[in-house]
Amino acid sequence: MAEIRVASVQLAPVLGDYEGNQARVVAAVTHAAEAGAAVVVVPELATSGYAFSSVEEARAVARPAAVALEPWVSAAASSGCIVAGGFAELDGDAVFNSAAIVSGDGVRAVYRKVHLWDRESLFFSTGSAFPPVVDTAVGRLGLCVCYDIEFPEIPRGLALAGAELICVPTNWPDEGRPSGERAMEIVRAMGAASSSRVFIACADRCGAERGVEWVGGSAIVSESGWLLAGPPDTSSSALLLADCDLALARDKRLNERNDVFADRRPEVYRGALE
Amino acid sequence: MAEIRVASVQLAPVLGDYEGNQARVVAAVTHAAEAGAAVVVVPELATSGYAFSSVEEARAVARPAAVALEPWVSAAASSGCIVAGGFAELDGDAVFNSAAIVSGDGVRAVYRKVHLWDRESLFFSTGSAFPPVVDTAVGRLGLCVCYDIEFPEIPRGLALAGAELICVPTNWPDEGRPSGERAMEIVRAMGAASSSRVFIACADRCGAERGVEWVGGSAIVSESGWLLAGPPDTSSSALLLADCDLALARDKRLNERNDVFADRRPEVYRGALE
Repeated sequence: MAEIRVASVQLAPVLGDYEGNQARVVAAVTHAAEAGAAVVVVPELATSGYAFSSVEEARAVARPAAVALEPWVSAAASSGCIVAGGFAELDGDAVFNSAAIVSGDGVRAVYRKVHLWDRESLFFSTGSAFPPVVDTAVGRLGLCVCYDIEFPEIPRGLALAGAELICVPTNWPDEGRPSGERAMEIVRAMGAASSSRVFIACADRCGAERGVEWVGGSAIVSESGWLLAGPPDTSSSALLLADCDLALARDKRLNERNDVFADRRPEVYRGALE
Repeated sequence: MAEIRVASVQLAPVLGDYEGNQARVVAAVTHAAEAGAAVVVVPELATSGYAFSSVEEARAVARPAAVALEPWVSAAASSGCIVAGGFAELDGDAVFNSAAIVSGDGVRAVYRKVHLWDRESLFFSTGSAFPPVVDTAVGRLGLCVCYDIEFPEIPRGLALAGAELICVPTNWPDEGRPSGERAMEIVRAMGAASSSRVFIACADRCGAERGVEWVGGSAIVSESGWLLAGPPDTSSSALLLADCDLALARDKRLNERNDVFADRRPEVYRGALE
């Protein structure tokens, strides 16, 4: 397979502004596709904003998946790309911090975040299924959301399930770091990518919300763990682009004798990861 | 518990010089203990060198664990520290790339490397047991060797078994990296430390051997993933020291609501990591 262009879009959703947020996502997807992107990753909770004060506030901006994702399918269809991103999902009275992969043909996967961060547990119900890997025309895409990737089981499990590119919609609060260091969120993504030889595209949000600032952690990481794009210099909006040969992620060999998957010893790990 | 001083010793074993290598290890341990170290990590295959050309050559410098580790126990006893490091272990005709944790009281654990790197498989038999965690007077120490830590299952499993400090004797060949970047071996260690809130001390070797150069990847990483010491500026000998409060590694909380272990979802991961 030839290279495909991957985009990570850092943008600023506005808390509670569902229609405006959808317009921002569609504009960003269209813009990225015009720049040649075949896969466009947008942030976690891109349709809703993040810093809710009550479940009612979260519910008011949540929509059933088919409703929330219809504009994304339309944008994907008109621009010919695949979109991965996060949205507030309504299911009955329950609200989930969900993410989806959509193509012009429709919704390919909806995932409900299984590791909720901090006050998210006050507003969101918790997912109960391992995140998905979706076969698309441009490659096999994995999906997880924000804090999920801090659990080594998640990127590892997605790569073992065949993901060539893991899409990570995220809202990473800025918790500080030593001077001169990259955000630890990016360090973890680099390590996870290199350990499983899988591309990872993180799309972080920007725009302070009720006092929460963000780390500006959008990045596209190669299957060797090195940064292909990002993080942006600032915590403002950004479009990151990188050309990725996803065939590299199907080849787990490191040299003539080593292969990061064939060298695994599941019988040795058994019981150690419970 | 108060802080303990951890040492990672980067040194240059000489291929085949068993007696000289033992003297170098004992001198390094004594020197580190004089600098206050309670735990001293020395490189992989510190007694033997690395770049063997035949199994006979490896076997000639391998010793039964009790023999190879006797000088380490003596050094630990006389200096009052704990030693973790690698050695070539002879068991019948088989040679293992092994590592051990010893105190002045004796050998606490011997581990046989389960993930062999490149030509190691030509000389060494493969271990079949998950690496150990040892309760010591200064804290719970985990152990793994070099390529092992590239498998996320290993540092994760050691931390889940209670390791507060993972000791990583290593010989990391230099395979190049983008200008301005740290070695990916260190990036992976930082990510693994932060994901499981565990300290990690890597002791790399130096000294080119039969054309193999090393990455100089010795480092001591905090439970938050940040570098406390290293990597050294050069690929020459180095003594890294860092004071580590291992109690921090027993506290897996990130905030009032999150705990990196309590937040795990083993029932969701089941089957994904086979």
